[in-house]
Amino acid sequence: MNKITYLFALMLLATGLHAADSVEQWGVYEVALNGPTNGDPFLDVKFSARFTQGTNVVEANGFYDGDGIYRVRFMPETTGRWTYKTASNARKLNGKSGEFAVTKPAAKNHGTVGVTNTFHFAYADGTPYEELGTTCYVWQLQDEALQEQTLKTLAASPFNKIRFCVFPKRYTWNTNEPILYPFASRDDFATLTNWDFTQFNVKYFQHLEQRVADLQKLGIEADIILFHPYDEGHWGFDRMPAAVDDRYLRYVIARLAAYRNVWWSLANEWDFMKEKKESDFVRFGEIVSHDDPYHHLLSIHNGQKIFNQTLPWITHASIQNGAAVEEPGRAELYRDVYRKPVVYDEVKYEGNIENRWGQLSAEELVFRFWNATIAGTYCGHGETYKSADQVLWWSKGGVLKGESPARLAFLKKVLDAAPPEGIEPIDKWQDSPIGGQPGKYYLIYFGKTSPTNWVFQLPKPPLGKLQSADGLKFTAEILDAWNMTVTPVDGTFTLNKKSGYSFADRDGRSIALSGKPYIAIRIRRVEN
Amino acid sequence: MNKITYLFALMLLATGLHAADSVEQWGVYEVALNGPTNGDPFLDVKFSARFTQGTNVVEANGFYDGDGIYRVRFMPETTGRWTYKTASNARKLNGKSGEFAVTKPAAKNHGTVGVTNTFHFAYADGTPYEELGTTCYVWQLQDEALQEQTLKTLAASPFNKIRFCVFPKRYTWNTNEPILYPFASRDDFATLTNWDFTQFNVKYFQHLEQRVADLQKLGIEADIILFHPYDEGHWGFDRMPAAVDDRYLRYVIARLAAYRNVWWSLANEWDFMKEKKESDFVRFGEIVSHDDPYHHLLSIHNGQKIFNQTLPWITHASIQNGAAVEEPGRAELYRDVYRKPVVYDEVKYEGNIENRWGQLSAEELVFRFWNATIAGTYCGHGETYKSADQVLWWSKGGVLKGESPARLAFLKKVLDAAPPEGIEPIDKWQDSPIGGQPGKYYLIYFGKTSPTNWVFQLPKPPLGKLQSADGLKFTAEILDAWNMTVTPVDGTFTLNKKSGYSFADRDGRSIALSGKPYIAIRIRRVEN
Repeated sequence: MNKITYLFALMLLATGLHAADSVEQWGVYEVALNGPTNGDPFLDVKFSARFTQGTNVVEANGFYDGDGIYRVRFMPETTGRWTYKTASNARKLNGKSGEFAVTKPAAKNHGTVGVTNTFHFAYADGTPYEELGTTCYVWQLQDEALQEQTLKTLAASPFNKIRFCVFPKRYTWNTNEPILYPFASRDDFATLTNWDFTQFNVKYFQHLEQRVADLQKLGIEADIILFHPYDEGHWGFDRMPAAVDDRYLRYVIARLAAYRNVWWSLANEWDFMKEKKESDFVRFGEIVSHDDPYHHLLSIHNGQKIFNQTLPWITHASIQNGAAVEEPGRAELYRDVYRKPVVYDEVKYEGNIENRWGQLSAEELVFRFWNATIAGTYCGHGETYKSADQVLWWSKGGVLKGESPARLAFLKKVLDAAPPEGIEPIDKWQDSPIGGQPGKYYLIYFGKTSPTNWVFQLPKPPLGKLQSADGLKFTAEILDAWNMTVTPVDGTFTLNKKSGYSFADRDGRSIALSGKPYIAIRIRRVEN
Repeated sequence: MNKITYLFALMLLATGLHAADSVEQWGVYEVALNGPTNGDPFLDVKFSARFTQGTNVVEANGFYDGDGIYRVRFMPETTGRWTYKTASNARKLNGKSGEFAVTKPAAKNHGTVGVTNTFHFAYADGTPYEELGTTCYVWQLQDEALQEQTLKTLAASPFNKIRFCVFPKRYTWNTNEPILYPFASRDDFATLTNWDFTQFNVKYFQHLEQRVADLQKLGIEADIILFHPYDEGHWGFDRMPAAVDDRYLRYVIARLAAYRNVWWSLANEWDFMKEKKESDFVRFGEIVSHDDPYHHLLSIHNGQKIFNQTLPWITHASIQNGAAVEEPGRAELYRDVYRKPVVYDEVKYEGNIENRWGQLSAEELVFRFWNATIAGTYCGHGETYKSADQVLWWSKGGVLKGESPARLAFLKKVLDAAPPEGIEPIDKWQDSPIGGQPGKYYLIYFGKTSPTNWVFQLPKPPLGKLQSADGLKFTAEILDAWNMTVTPVDGTFTLNKKSGYSFADRDGRSIALSGKPYIAIRIRRVEN
């Protein structure tokens, strides 16, 4: 939330209209109004606003935030003067208008993240976004101290995305009740099932919103999981009536869509939600993509059954697969199917619990990230180390205990220095462990093999305006992905045609390697 | 074609209606009529028939077959009495009716092949169809002797499907002209581009039909490729006007759909057809699936860009991928995406030409078939051995020179003895080289590894009605997939729980192996 808007919100009193004079680009602009408190504000009152700049028109739904206050929010995607006008079936909320200035974004505000070059991501201002996500399913529903610790851990981590659920979770290692509930209770919480689904608990959603804003301050994208199966009727948020599901979605979108760091995940393990049909998720996707004026990244995550990720409103394939990132040749296959970014949000976790999905070594998880990278896809982190206090990062946050995050920070540095177009498989039907941008940049990853030597050789690069690839010069560095070292190789390598498909160094040079596993070679073109 | 119908067709004289009194189930029933020869019979005359058995109604389009003869065909899917009535804008073809008996099918007639158990195929009578296909793109457009040789080779081969093109092909190793052309020429073939697209060359399509019938006699499915890019304007059949494309499709469907062994492939390497858009193929698919009353298997094959195989009219994913079958862990990934049978119709070919896609060793191609099998998918054969006479099997047919077909015949025997439900990946996120039916049948494939010993161990089987998997008994055989031997292992193996995920033999027994590559173990449950 923009600071000024936020102060206005805090200052909001019993009457009148509150809206700031200006907001930065991709900031949250809010119009807050006092409106009806009789009847059921959540059900009875329609409230929206139209934001206009010339022919550019954005319609945004508002929402009721309790205490007679109605808010409608807008995330401007262009600078300059904008005007708005509200519409409502409630007289006090209808026809209010105003104008405001959208100023240049602050230094660290690059806007929303979107898809670029088919398979990759970038911020709205063009800055590459090298996705490196983690998962803490219900970190924001733990006690306050633990939440603050999670934020502190995230701030020091390499992660720039976190997946978490709106609804509370009940599962192994996570049987505590959440700090708040999303709906009012008809029996004062004597049971945890007798909800009044017509009454959102605004405190619950205000808190969620605060945590989204906190993540935004850290430069972390909030991949918000809208439904999940880890309830199984305990609270029943996994089996609400369709009308409640839809109203809930619209409420969350109205409240959060103006936050630039929001991503929507329709569900975690959608296919494990026994009370829902596949068609329900299609409906959810259509609601989100229709109601979100900014078309934030939108995905859906599977258990065993992959959703139809070709549907047009799905922006990127969010995939759980326990084996697909065991080698680049597997990881790249989904790219061609979807022609969208592929994010392996769940590939099993680093940890030591009894479940097979939660006992990867750190080495194995880092290995999987590198395989995904070489394949032109993205991988997700999670951590499940047993803990006497029942606090496992994957579910509740807290501190990171594993050895992978430091190595993922190293990988992040490599990615940040890679071509902004993203890493692509170079010769995938022939030699899958090479990613990069052909003719320009290569990452060759040896994974679990432990070579002591690598003969310099590259697949035939595209010629573009060149007559021949012969004579092109490259530098090389040895990256130790586990020990986090970068060792430049002396001199340069000069291409010489070897076959119809490949080029080697003119002098037949090789690169001596340590014989350790998890080594990569980074090769970059020297502009002659 | 049913024998009686065929004789009727031959006997067809200048006037009257020709139709048989009976036809076998899944045979070709034909109504032939003399009709208008003035104007353009291909363009001006609408002709169809409605075939009825109680509430079961099939509408089939007819077609003009030259010499004033119009035919409409029907493949009955049920036995008993059927009636028909023709409809036409030509008086002589309109309102003709009759009835006929559909008799039980002959012994080797199992009906059309369709999808079963999501990922597999079966004939209409329930007989499993273990797909094992090859490719000879334009075998039927070579000289007569070569065509006959191809049929002879196919008859002695393990293949039960062949992919081939309707249109002639111009490509490396295939620069000869076809024996016939599909359209009349405006300049008597002085050039090969001045076609009269309003005039089908009926001889061309009669010949195609004859070859489909010949394949049917051999029990081989005809996977008919309707468009392909290997023309590049030489004849221009890859860049006909949309109306011609659509008329051509309707003509081929009207002529061939009643043949039970027809499969439709909209295109080979659809994305290499530079004059077509992706939306053209969507239109083609909609035409075929709409016009074909029997909904024969319908697919589309890619070059580099995979078609959206999730579209509802695509019955199975026909995939070209040069690397996906290098291991079962890759091969199985597309299954979950498509929830349809996955047929890797092109995985590179056995041969020795310069192109990387045509120089697999026989060992490598057989290895790929086994990987696809273990993954619950299907693989395709092709052969590209250099030849002084320019006859390469993959393009023209002739004789098979490679060493893979004998091994594929061995694989076919294994498949024919496998559970009729098909082979499924057993524990794909953990241990991909095991396929089978859990608790019942397992194929463990060691591929290029050369173990000398295998400790008997299986992933936890489903219990069904059992209290425990402890005590289940299995036999084992060692299959040498290259040397084509089956060696039973003495005694039985009895399950004993080893962990939450696996069971081993109660006595800790192992199976001694040869240390050769390409070994599999077949494990079958002994019913106690």
